[in-house]
Amino acid sequence: MNEKLETGDIVRCTLKGCTCEGTYIATREGMATVKLTSGYNIGVPQDALTKTGSSEMAEPQITEIRQKSDLPLISIVSTGGTIASKIDYRTGAVTSQFRASDILNAIPGLATIAQFRAVQLCNILSENMTPAIWQQLARAIHDEIKAGAQGIIVTHGTDTMAYSAAAVSFMLKTPVPVVFVGSQRSADRPSSDNVMNGMCAAGAALSTLGEVVVVMHGSTSDDFCAIHRGTRVRKMHTSRRDAFQTIGTETLGTVSYPALEVTLNSGAVRRGATELFLKEKLEEKCGIVWYYPGMSPDTLSAWNGYKGIILAGTGLGHSGTDFIARIKEMHAAGTVFVMTSQCLNGRVCDRVYDTGRDLLGAGVIEGEDMLPEVALVKLMWVLGNSKNPDEARELMKQDLAGEMTRRSRV
Amino acid sequence: MNEKLETGDIVRCTLKGCTCEGTYIATREGMATVKLTSGYNIGVPQDALTKTGSSEMAEPQITEIRQKSDLPLISIVSTGGTIASKIDYRTGAVTSQFRASDILNAIPGLATIAQFRAVQLCNILSENMTPAIWQQLARAIHDEIKAGAQGIIVTHGTDTMAYSAAAVSFMLKTPVPVVFVGSQRSADRPSSDNVMNGMCAAGAALSTLGEVVVVMHGSTSDDFCAIHRGTRVRKMHTSRRDAFQTIGTETLGTVSYPALEVTLNSGAVRRGATELFLKEKLEEKCGIVWYYPGMSPDTLSAWNGYKGIILAGTGLGHSGTDFIARIKEMHAAGTVFVMTSQCLNGRVCDRVYDTGRDLLGAGVIEGEDMLPEVALVKLMWVLGNSKNPDEARELMKQDLAGEMTRRSRV
Repeated sequence: MNEKLETGDIVRCTLKGCTCEGTYIATREGMATVKLTSGYNIGVPQDALTKTGSSEMAEPQITEIRQKSDLPLISIVSTGGTIASKIDYRTGAVTSQFRASDILNAIPGLATIAQFRAVQLCNILSENMTPAIWQQLARAIHDEIKAGAQGIIVTHGTDTMAYSAAAVSFMLKTPVPVVFVGSQRSADRPSSDNVMNGMCAAGAALSTLGEVVVVMHGSTSDDFCAIHRGTRVRKMHTSRRDAFQTIGTETLGTVSYPALEVTLNSGAVRRGATELFLKEKLEEKCGIVWYYPGMSPDTLSAWNGYKGIILAGTGLGHSGTDFIARIKEMHAAGTVFVMTSQCLNGRVCDRVYDTGRDLLGAGVIEGEDMLPEVALVKLMWVLGNSKNPDEARELMKQDLAGEMTRRSRV
Repeated sequence: MNEKLETGDIVRCTLKGCTCEGTYIATREGMATVKLTSGYNIGVPQDALTKTGSSEMAEPQITEIRQKSDLPLISIVSTGGTIASKIDYRTGAVTSQFRASDILNAIPGLATIAQFRAVQLCNILSENMTPAIWQQLARAIHDEIKAGAQGIIVTHGTDTMAYSAAAVSFMLKTPVPVVFVGSQRSADRPSSDNVMNGMCAAGAALSTLGEVVVVMHGSTSDDFCAIHRGTRVRKMHTSRRDAFQTIGTETLGTVSYPALEVTLNSGAVRRGATELFLKEKLEEKCGIVWYYPGMSPDTLSAWNGYKGIILAGTGLGHSGTDFIARIKEMHAAGTVFVMTSQCLNGRVCDRVYDTGRDLLGAGVIEGEDMLPEVALVKLMWVLGNSKNPDEARELMKQDLAGEMTRRSRV
C-alpha cells in the first residue's frame, strides 16, 4: 500500500508503460515528488508508486579543513543557487545553506590553493534576484576587495547569473578578478559540474585578470572552463553544463581542468589596471519589452511612468509601425528608450529602413550590439547615475564596461 | 553650396574626421539621407555634405523573359521585404513593387528551371506582419497548391519570417514544399543574397520535400543554402547572410549553389506524405511576456483578458515567485499560460525546483523545447481551433508540426 510511504523510502514508479526508481520525498494533493536516481525530481500521482525498500543513504561526513595562512585570500560571496546547495540525503531536497566550511567540504581541492573568507549575502533561487540585491552584492564585493581579498568568487544560481554579472560590471570597477560561478546540476548528480566550476573559478580568481567575469564549463567534457566577460555572456541552454556562451565576440580566456592553467586573450583587462570604485545607484523602474507580430501598442501602458525601456525589436531593431506614436508620447513624458535586437547577435542599425528612421525620430537610442539583458542593467545604472536625460542618452551610447564592441568604420 | 543638392547627386560627406561618398537622396529637418557606395543608407547633417558630381546611374534594362510551358509550376507569393524590392537607381530608395516579371528579371536563372505564377499578397515591411495577414497567406498558399502549383515560394522580410513560417506550419498541411525565402541585403549591394537565396528556394520548391521551410544562406560563403523547418528556425543575427539557424535540432537539409542539388535528412517530411488541408483560424489575443529580474507582477496587467500568454522564463522555465499568485488569478479567469525559456536552447522542466512546481500548480503548461516565438503562434492556432481549454492544453503538449523534439526517456 503506497499510502504508507515515508520520506526516504525507495519506490518504483509505473506510469504510461514507463518504469523508474527513486526516493520518495512527499505528497501534496495526490501528487508525489520522487527524486530519481538521475538526481532529478519528478512529480507523479501517488497511485503510481510502489515501495521497494527503505533509504539506506546516510548523511555525508563533514570534515573540518584547516586553511593554510600562507596562501592568497579569496572571498566567496554567496547568493544561493545550485552550486551552494546542500543535499538532504534522506529527502533528496536541495537546500542552499552555506558556510565557508560547507563549500570547502564540498570542494576539498579549494583549500590547497587559497584561503577563503565567506560572505553569505542571501540565499535565493536566482529567478528571485532583484536590483536591490545587486546593490548589496556590489557593496559586499567592494568591501571584501577593500579588506584585502585577492580575488572574489560569487556563487549564484544560473538562471539570472548573466544579468547579475552585467549589473555588477557597471556598478563596480575592480582591480582584482570578480568571478561569478554556478552549477547546472546539483552536487548529488553524477554529472554535477559544481566541483570543476568551483575549482576553475578559484583559478580565475587567483589569475592576472582584473574584471567581472562568469566562469563555467566550456564544453560538454570536463577539460576546461570558459571565462566570459560579465557584459557579453548569456545562458543559452536550459540544462547543458556548457550553457553559458559569450555572444558576439570572443571569450576572455580559459581555465584548464584539473591543472587550473589560466589562458587570457589580449583583450582581457588585467589585475591592477583599474582602481577600486563603487557607484551602486540603480534606477529600478526599467524594463524589457519583447516585440512580437500583432503586439498591441496598448501593451506598452504596463510600463507607463517607467524611466527606461529596452525594446527587444526584430532584425536590425524594429517594432511595428503603430508603436512609433506611443513611443514618441512616452519619450516626451520622460521615458528613455533603447533599441536592441531579439536576434541577440549583430548590431542594431535603425538607419537602413523607414521604420528604424522613424523610431530614431521618436527618440529611440540605438543599442549597438548590446544584449537586451545587458542593456537593461546598463540603463538602470545610467539612469541612476546621470544628472539629466541628455547625459543618460550619451552614456548609453558609450562603451562603459565592454558591453558593446567597436563599430567597424564606414 | 550644399543647399542646391538634388536627389541623385554624388556627394562627399565629412563628419568627425571620417569621409565617405554616396548618392544624395533627400533632407528632412536638416538631416540628409545618403546612400553609401556600400549600399547602406546613412543619415547625416546636410551641412556635412559637398556635391562632387551628378548621378550617372541609369535605370536597369527590363527584358521580357518567355516562360517555358513544359517546366514545373512554382507559385511565388510575395509579402514584401528586401528580396522583393526594386531599387530606384536615381534615389537609391528601396521599394517593394513586385510582379512575376520583376522577380524573373532580378533572378533570370529562375526561368530556366520552372514556370512561375505570381501572387502579390501584400507589400509590407515584415515588422508590420500580423496574424490576420498570416491567415490570408495560408489561404493564398492553399489555393495555389489546389490550383496545381508543384511548389510554393513565399518572399518575406527577414525580421519576422520565422514567426510567419511557424504560423503557416500550423495552419496548413501541405503535400508540396512551401519555401519561405528572404534577403538580408538588398539587390543593389554587391554582397546581396537575393539571387542565390531565390535560386535555392526554387531548388527546394521543386524537391521531394513536403513541408513548410525557410531557405536562406547556410554559411558566409555562397556555396549552399540551409533548409530549416518552419517551426524550429530563428533569425540569430541582425545582418549576416547566414542569420537563420535551426535551433535545438538538425537542419532538414541543404541546397547546393549554383548546382541546386537538394540533400534532405531522413527526418524531412516528403512530397505527397501529407494531404492538403487548411485550418486557418487564429486567436489573436495572445502574447509573449519576457521575464527579467525585478519585473513587477503588475506588468502582467497589460495582457489582462488575453486568451493565451507565452512566458519566456529563465533557465528551466522560471519567473520570480511573486508572479505565481497573479498567474493563478489570470489562469482562473481563463488565460492559458505556456512556459518557454529565454535560453532558447534546451527543454523546459518545471519539476526540478520549487518555483517551477509552483508555476505548474498555478496552471502553467510546460512548453517542452519550443521556441517562445513558435509557442506563441502555436497557442494562437490551438486556441483558435479548440473546443475548450482542456483540449487546448492537451494540444499544446503535443507535437503538431515538428515544433517540439521528442523527450528522451527517463
